[in-house]
Amino acid sequence: MNLRIPGPTPCPPEVLEAVAQPMINHRGRQFAALIQRVSERLKHFYQTKSDVFILTTSGTGGLEAAVVNTLSPGDRVLSVSIGAFGDRFAAIAESFGADVVALNYEWGKAADPDEVAKALSSDPSIKAVLVTHNETSTGVTNPLAEIARVVREREKLLLVDAISSLGSIPLYTDEWGLDVVVSGSQKGWMVPPGLAFVSMSERGWQAYESATMPRYYFDLARHRDSLSKGQTPWTPALSMFFGLDVALERLAEEGLESIFARHARLGRLTREGVRALGLTLFADERFASDTVTAVRLPEGVEDKVLRNLLEDDHGVVLAGGQGKLAGRIFRIGHLGLVSEEEIRQTLSALEVALPRAGYTLRTRA
Amino acid sequence: MNLRIPGPTPCPPEVLEAVAQPMINHRGRQFAALIQRVSERLKHFYQTKSDVFILTTSGTGGLEAAVVNTLSPGDRVLSVSIGAFGDRFAAIAESFGADVVALNYEWGKAADPDEVAKALSSDPSIKAVLVTHNETSTGVTNPLAEIARVVREREKLLLVDAISSLGSIPLYTDEWGLDVVVSGSQKGWMVPPGLAFVSMSERGWQAYESATMPRYYFDLARHRDSLSKGQTPWTPALSMFFGLDVALERLAEEGLESIFARHARLGRLTREGVRALGLTLFADERFASDTVTAVRLPEGVEDKVLRNLLEDDHGVVLAGGQGKLAGRIFRIGHLGLVSEEEIRQTLSALEVALPRAGYTLRTRA
Repeated sequence: MNLRIPGPTPCPPEVLEAVAQPMINHRGRQFAALIQRVSERLKHFYQTKSDVFILTTSGTGGLEAAVVNTLSPGDRVLSVSIGAFGDRFAAIAESFGADVVALNYEWGKAADPDEVAKALSSDPSIKAVLVTHNETSTGVTNPLAEIARVVREREKLLLVDAISSLGSIPLYTDEWGLDVVVSGSQKGWMVPPGLAFVSMSERGWQAYESATMPRYYFDLARHRDSLSKGQTPWTPALSMFFGLDVALERLAEEGLESIFARHARLGRLTREGVRALGLTLFADERFASDTVTAVRLPEGVEDKVLRNLLEDDHGVVLAGGQGKLAGRIFRIGHLGLVSEEEIRQTLSALEVALPRAGYTLRTRA
Repeated sequence: MNLRIPGPTPCPPEVLEAVAQPMINHRGRQFAALIQRVSERLKHFYQTKSDVFILTTSGTGGLEAAVVNTLSPGDRVLSVSIGAFGDRFAAIAESFGADVVALNYEWGKAADPDEVAKALSSDPSIKAVLVTHNETSTGVTNPLAEIARVVREREKLLLVDAISSLGSIPLYTDEWGLDVVVSGSQKGWMVPPGLAFVSMSERGWQAYESATMPRYYFDLARHRDSLSKGQTPWTPALSMFFGLDVALERLAEEGLESIFARHARLGRLTREGVRALGLTLFADERFASDTVTAVRLPEGVEDKVLRNLLEDDHGVVLAGGQGKLAGRIFRIGHLGLVSEEEIRQTLSALEVALPRAGYTLRTRA
């Protein structure tokens, strides 16, 4: 099966083998060594000196952790949203009582750092900014370095959803001054879903001291205390830790810059191939993501028909659109364990399946 | 390795094999069939007609879900606590603003249903009761059926931590009238940690309508909506679902009553063996748990010395004490995948290791 959704991504055989290891005592010596090792490795991939905590949760729980550990009900927060996951981040903050000011972009576009600067300058009561680095629902990567610069200049907290970017495309936590950065095991990390990673800066910890949103399971101070003893506060998803250990070793061997270059190359290959089929990208191409490509469904082609054909006849699994994009786009994941060959096979399968799903190659004629 | 901690429990080889399956699309047809299958099977083990939701989280997150989906800040709640996990349940409710009235018992004792009745009658403003079915920290099983009866008579909500009981010892959700019941994959279910199960009664859903505690990741209405489409609201820990599917099939083959009988037999065997070594049980024997046995550390024996000896020389892994019981007890898990042979080996290892750790067999002389 050529699983080309933007997560869960395929896992290398050695990761799956590790995932199948027998259980151990999560309060014992072996786990203590394991969590120290993977936490240290994650700091390298995060490019941070701060602790990176490993939470047993989906990525969305990691986003909730970012919010509830730094904010109080009534805090004014700027939500910079360019899609479904940006909206989700804002909805979490709102659920916990934040006063959310929305800077929403048309889906498919990236955020404009100048407009973020303007929004912050026009409302000095804003305490924090929520931003998605790579918007999985639209295939757009925000100019995070530039956004971070304007946020830093104005001394606001910056909470970043880097779930589908970190470990795949460039992100430098400390250099860019990101306060809370969230990622998830099932993306570029090539590990099954079930773990979220959360880093927190010194500024984040200062915010924690006065933050009054209720928290228990996602309380990062409990994770900090436990990590110093080589533990997690609650029983961790051990199998995913076993897999992560092996995956991080593999990623470390490849090296950060090589990983980034590989994703950039595969992103380009995917976009070129999609265009060659006469299809239209959904994203503003200047900000097209190197981890996921969103493609407009051509007129007359039904999403389910196309994707079922691809899966049943070609073993290629693509993702549909989310929220208001359901039935309007399909998405190709190209992050984590993915080769040029798999992208080429995906494109070939599309070439065969599209006409069978009702597509007329008008633009290619 | 003879992993005899009260969770994570050992997993059968076929479960670990399933856990290692390649990733699939969590929004696709295969997962829809899988989640429908395991959710239906869980309803049987819960003995309920209500939905059982599967959350990607440790058990503690399941407890948080029980609280935040049914309560509002300021709600008066009776916490019936007999140990560390009862205290944790109360702490979660307090963190989210509940007004917690504590009915605490000396650790090692069970709760008294008459006293629960008295506490409820003396304060009609109490809206809900939190109770631990099986207190893993002390090895005590509460008389849940009797507690439930007095709670039902007074028409209060009953939230139950059944993490280390459900699927191992008798619990009848609908018959007993339990409103929210939480369990965790790494206990009697023989699946690695990472999933919590939560059932919610009609009364629970009525409470949900007016409950205002903030919630997002643990919002059960989102799970209900997604389950009707064969999905979870957030990316699920797929590997654990694969394992759960196989484990539930195995458990269904054994049958509910056989599973209960096996745990009762192994619980008895463990307690008899421990006493035969001249050791003292920590729990009130009338309420001793059939999933975990807590044993007082004899004078002169250091917890770490004993447990390291057992692990290094005998391959037997026991759990230490939690919270104020650290260094005062050790605990033997006998739930999930466990045979008489493994209990006998544990007892033999203790017999050899205890004297080496400084134990004099005074009472056996």
